[in-house]
Amino acid sequence: MNKVNLAEAFETFSDYWSPRIAGELNDSYVKLAKFSGKFDWHHHEHEDELFLVVSGRLRMGLRSGDIDLEPGELIIVPRGTEHCPEALTDECHVILLEPKSTLNTGNVISERTVRNLKDL
Amino acid sequence: MNKVNLAEAFETFSDYWSPRIAGELNDSYVKLAKFSGKFDWHHHEHEDELFLVVSGRLRMGLRSGDIDLEPGELIIVPRGTEHCPEALTDECHVILLEPKSTLNTGNVISERTVRNLKDL
Repeated sequence: MNKVNLAEAFETFSDYWSPRIAGELNDSYVKLAKFSGKFDWHHHEHEDELFLVVSGRLRMGLRSGDIDLEPGELIIVPRGTEHCPEALTDECHVILLEPKSTLNTGNVISERTVRNLKDL
Repeated sequence: MNKVNLAEAFETFSDYWSPRIAGELNDSYVKLAKFSGKFDWHHHEHEDELFLVVSGRLRMGLRSGDIDLEPGELIIVPRGTEHCPEALTDECHVILLEPKSTLNTGNVISERTVRNLKDL
């Protein structure tokens, strides 16, 4: 059993929209991701998804109205809810928690879809 | 859908070893807890448990050797593993992630067992 130091873990990769697996528990992965710019609108049919902002600012685009998050703020996007994450700063570092089955682009397959997740 | 500001959420309660539900996703709760002093040794038969330190310092007592955590560090205690959380500072604020079925004292029922979790 090892602990994970988030700051050190974020230092180990630099690509955007490419989550790294920081740990697993029960049926879920804890992932770390760096966002820059705007992602694609998508939803996850069967999975709720948690975003916790570690650094930078995140806009969660939602059809019901965007929600902006600062470091130390989290949001849970329920299954079936269309959303579009966007970094409001040059970079935004985020902890994601979601079932192992979750594909980053949800119902939309694009060049940003990551099928084979990398470990830290 | 609402965001949760962790600092504000931790301001809303003051009792120790009494986790508050900050959100739910899939089959899990995100809980916030304040630790002070040492808890009881216990394990969870069927549930892995994540601890992310927000403030203060946490010692995760483990039969294989203790692991100390600073703010911004997390540890996942696998099911079946005996553990004993201990605050190394006056207070330690922690985000917990675990299945809804998880009882705080695991296999040990004591006066610290919390059966009816409170929302924030």
